[in-house]
Amino acid sequence: MRFSSSDRQINVNRLEALTDGVFSIAITLLVLTIRIPEPGEIISQSELIKYILSLDYELFSYCISFFVVGSLWISGNKRMKFLRKTDDLHLWLSLLNLLFITLIPLTTSLLSDYGDFEFVELLFHGNILMLEIIALIEWEYLIRNTDLVQEEVLSKLDIRNIRKKNFFSVFVPILGMVISIFTSAWSNLVYLLLFFRSLIIRY
Amino acid sequence: MRFSSSDRQINVNRLEALTDGVFSIAITLLVLTIRIPEPGEIISQSELIKYILSLDYELFSYCISFFVVGSLWISGNKRMKFLRKTDDLHLWLSLLNLLFITLIPLTTSLLSDYGDFEFVELLFHGNILMLEIIALIEWEYLIRNTDLVQEEVLSKLDIRNIRKKNFFSVFVPILGMVISIFTSAWSNLVYLLLFFRSLIIRY
Amino acid sequence: MRFSSSDRQINVNRLEALTDGVFSIAITLLVLTIRIPEPGEIISQSELIKYILSLDYELFSYCISFFVVGSLWISGNKRMKFLRKTDDLHLWLSLLNLLFITLIPLTTSLLSDYGDFEFVELLFHGNILMLEIIALIEWEYLIRNTDLVQEEVLSKLDIRNIRKKNFFSVFVPILGMVISIFTSAWSNLVYLLLFFRSLIIRY
Amino acid sequence: MRFSSSDRQINVNRLEALTDGVFSIAITLLVLTIRIPEPGEIISQSELIKYILSLDYELFSYCISFFVVGSLWISGNKRMKFLRKTDDLHLWLSLLNLLFITLIPLTTSLLSDYGDFEFVELLFHGNILMLEIIALIEWEYLIRNTDLVQEEVLSKLDIRNIRKKNFFSVFVPILGMVISIFTSAWSNLVYLLLFFRSLIIRY
Repeated sequence: MRFSSSDRQINVNRLEALTDGVFSIAITLLVLTIRIPEPGEIISQSELIKYILSLDYELFSYCISFFVVGSLWISGNKRMKFLRKTDDLHLWLSLLNLLFITLIPLTTSLLSDYGDFEFVELLFHGNILMLEIIALIEWEYLIRNTDLVQEEVLSKLDIRNIRKKNFFSVFVPILGMVISIFTSAWSNLVYLLLFFRSLIIRY
Repeated sequence: MRFSSSDRQINVNRLEALTDGVFSIAITLLVLTIRIPEPGEIISQSELIKYILSLDYELFSYCISFFVVGSLWISGNKRMKFLRKTDDLHLWLSLLNLLFITLIPLTTSLLSDYGDFEFVELLFHGNILMLEIIALIEWEYLIRNTDLVQEEVLSKLDIRNIRKKNFFSVFVPILGMVISIFTSAWSNLVYLLLFFRSLIIRY
Repeated sequence: MRFSSSDRQINVNRLEALTDGVFSIAITLLVLTIRIPEPGEIISQSELIKYILSLDYELFSYCISFFVVGSLWISGNKRMKFLRKTDDLHLWLSLLNLLFITLIPLTTSLLSDYGDFEFVELLFHGNILMLEIIALIEWEYLIRNTDLVQEEVLSKLDIRNIRKKNFFSVFVPILGMVISIFTSAWSNLVYLLLFFRSLIIRY
Repeated sequence: MRFSSSDRQINVNRLEALTDGVFSIAITLLVLTIRIPEPGEIISQSELIKYILSLDYELFSYCISFFVVGSLWISGNKRMKFLRKTDDLHLWLSLLNLLFITLIPLTTSLLSDYGDFEFVELLFHGNILMLEIIALIEWEYLIRNTDLVQEEVLSKLDIRNIRKKNFFSVFVPILGMVISIFTSAWSNLVYLLLFFRSLIIRY
């Protein structure tokens, strides 16, 4: 549990714990983007049903964001699993990653309320884009700093495949940005492509 | 701690950490469904006592939801304890499970404020129903994918009993839905049945 | 890490993770009981300084509650450290404990805003009293169910001393209740006694 | 995983878990200091863009606070990594540390809204100063209580260097306080110095 490997590295376990903490809070705060009526605001049941049904776009945005955050958590886990130790630069990259994770409830909330504005869609896709770019940089850093990685795993890694997958992941929010210029409100459907990522690119 | 079993599986530990994170946040956010008066809103002590006493239904809903979430956490733990590793489909099932967990503070809050509307009760029971159905699917998936499960545990499992328990768990929110059509506001008392689950069906 | 001890028990690790999660969220939510002015609500710096200084009682309540929750976390850890495994009844006791932990931000918030009402002080002390009574019951349960406890630790335990400490801990909130009848607002100072607990009763 | 070392010490693991929990929640709550418009509050897209651009100072404060909290987490990890066990005094120091961590979302929020008031900047720097002073005391306590520290690590520690680093860390918020008297709003830029800490003082 406690390796005491070297004075300068920090346990990978701690980084995993902070990451899981931030992800679980961000994923739970997302639900606050769905606004429910105040007590007394609604009087009849039919009015309430109408209100709940009008939340369709909020619920859709919530599900997409939950799915994207979940997908980032899964790919982040795969990346972190190879780690033997960390260094300061890698830790700061990971914290930068967490910073953009904490912004997702914010950009999702904006999307929920102002999804018909192109600018808000660009902000949301930009948030995801930053996360995917940081993931790509983190991978490249690990590939170049093999002392951070577990040897027995490293040999099994198909680096070409990892890069393909990373570029695909960066491409998806860019596609979302392009689509958001043409249509309004539904451009985040593009993230359903992430579902197929593991099918089209094995890894 | 770090198995490096295979490149495609993720540590079960991480899934447990995310799950415990989401459950602990959802369980703590539940308390926000109990609305306390703003400072200055209430002037005399007797007025405040009257206010607190009027929170009876909110407190009751809170306790029931806390109990249901706790019960889902316990049964989820029992399920996860058998895991040796996970795969992508199992991870997504687990994330779907967490999505419906994060919705519970929302449906509980609606129930707190609008518990006399049948529709709100149906929403709450529907939320629990989804969670129990996902649990049932997850069990069936594990039973069919024995490579995910620890061998020495698998042999000891009484699959018939697990299925009985799962069907009982799905039945409870359905019973709640039926009851909510006849009475109003108190149909979530049905979840006290979960207390007896471990007594009537050993496992 | 994964013992697969028996099908009916759940890993103590998971209970520790949920407990640490709930405690860390409750302890962080406490800060929301300190109300800061909305942007634009205050115009001059001197007005803001006056406002911050007027938060003295809120800050005091916050520190006391933080200290009490921290103290409960420490004594809970000492209790959990002896666990070899858990059973259903012990898990439900632990969840009941967490339920009253999640209520502390609520009772603290009431105390912050309405600390001059005797009833609010009684509610706050009642909340702590419930937590200490549950801790006492949990200890008695563990002492009677030695299969849950690590043998090598059990022999070293001074049960008489544990009981002394538990009764002292139950006594403190009761003393707080009595004091709150005579004075107003400052009865939670009584919890500073917990500081001396480890000095007067060794354990 | 479970050492049962002695009845009086608590697992370092639990302290790590609580710390990671509080840090991840504080770091995620920070985002709530960025106020987004209510639904319906803004009508045209150009108005929304103007609004988002006006959040520059809030976003800047958010990034600085995130960076400071991240930096405190990293240095706290380095400190905790040397621990073999804890005692009551060390636990209370750690909890005091967490108390000031939970205050950061509050002081950051004040800074976001009232950053042009010198007093608010002093509060923010004071919050960080307390955290750095507690870290310094914790280090001195560990250096004097070598039974808490892992022996094989202790010999490798360069105590002179640790002290240099601690005094540098205490100096930064004091510098911030001095700067805040001369300029307004941007004194928290001083924390960028923390970036160079690991370069100028090796450790």
